[in-house]
Amino acid sequence: MKTFKKSDFPVEDVRRFLEPGPVVLVSSMWKGVPNVMTMGWHTVMEFTPSLVGCIISSANHSFDMVRRSRECVINIPTAGMAGTVVGIGNCSGADTDKFGRFGLTPVAGDEVGAPLIAQCHSSFECRLFDARLVRKFNFFIFEVVKAHVATSPKYPRTMHYRGDGVFMISGRHVNLRSRFSPQNL
Amino acid sequence: MKTFKKSDFPVEDVRRFLEPGPVVLVSSMWKGVPNVMTMGWHTVMEFTPSLVGCIISSANHSFDMVRRSRECVINIPTAGMAGTVVGIGNCSGADTDKFGRFGLTPVAGDEVGAPLIAQCHSSFECRLFDARLVRKFNFFIFEVVKAHVATSPKYPRTMHYRGDGVFMISGRHVNLRSRFSPQNL
Repeated sequence: MKTFKKSDFPVEDVRRFLEPGPVVLVSSMWKGVPNVMTMGWHTVMEFTPSLVGCIISSANHSFDMVRRSRECVINIPTAGMAGTVVGIGNCSGADTDKFGRFGLTPVAGDEVGAPLIAQCHSSFECRLFDARLVRKFNFFIFEVVKAHVATSPKYPRTMHYRGDGVFMISGRHVNLRSRFSPQNL
Repeated sequence: MKTFKKSDFPVEDVRRFLEPGPVVLVSSMWKGVPNVMTMGWHTVMEFTPSLVGCIISSANHSFDMVRRSRECVINIPTAGMAGTVVGIGNCSGADTDKFGRFGLTPVAGDEVGAPLIAQCHSSFECRLFDARLVRKFNFFIFEVVKAHVATSPKYPRTMHYRGDGVFMISGRHVNLRSRFSPQNL
């Protein structure tokens, strides 16, 4: 799989990549061991601080890793990684070194211990910001503390899960900026 | 704008339409007056009960309408409604009858007082399930109590916002079901 050369990106603009709703890969690190999971239940929550809420089921090996380390990296895979994305979602870090098995290249972050994934288009370093809904809903609110985005392409072709094994692949873009009031952009 | 003939749909399967991350139209009703807003920050949170979390900014006229009525309808517009979706997001229910202005047809729901939108592909009647993050984050957790989905097409062509006036339009579908373990579908 190809890797992407990334550069720093404003954390308040991560909606550019998250708000369309792609499946993401969440990488974590606990006691020196990295792991990665596929995740589709997430939402942008605020620009500043840059907040993202997401569900990480307690059935996932990553749940305790993220809860204990209070950190993760949210990575945006491209449609070219479809087999890898599905593979990651169908085995467990409890008995599998997923970085090794799927040929993913870990890259050290600047702010968190969890690794970025070189093969992903974008990687957002996250720290746990609010955990009050973790026990009841498995819902974590993260602050994106550092964002890394590929210098090209501007928009990745992403995978959007519908359940039942079916993914929607992102299509073309339309710019309707001229119809917006400036404060609503 | 065309309208869609809808039929009942299992509430535990609304991820089929929400998880890909489309912009939605949230309709509400308070003291006999309906309103509608454009919303892009939402996530599926649970299958059963069928939970959806979303941000409705307190700057929106809909905020108090939804908070007080504890109900709304989440409607999925198609890409053919792009002008309407942007128009709805760039005026306020405080001084505009949006159903009238944009030619939307309200349809009575079965479970909630807020109207469904006939021009949308799918409409999910919602009741407020948990409000503990409303004050701090404007984050509402709704239970989908009744779902209505167009009998055709199976998947609507949807709009996915990136900010700055740019929308991604949903593209083709791929079925990778054969690569999933049954419990992970």
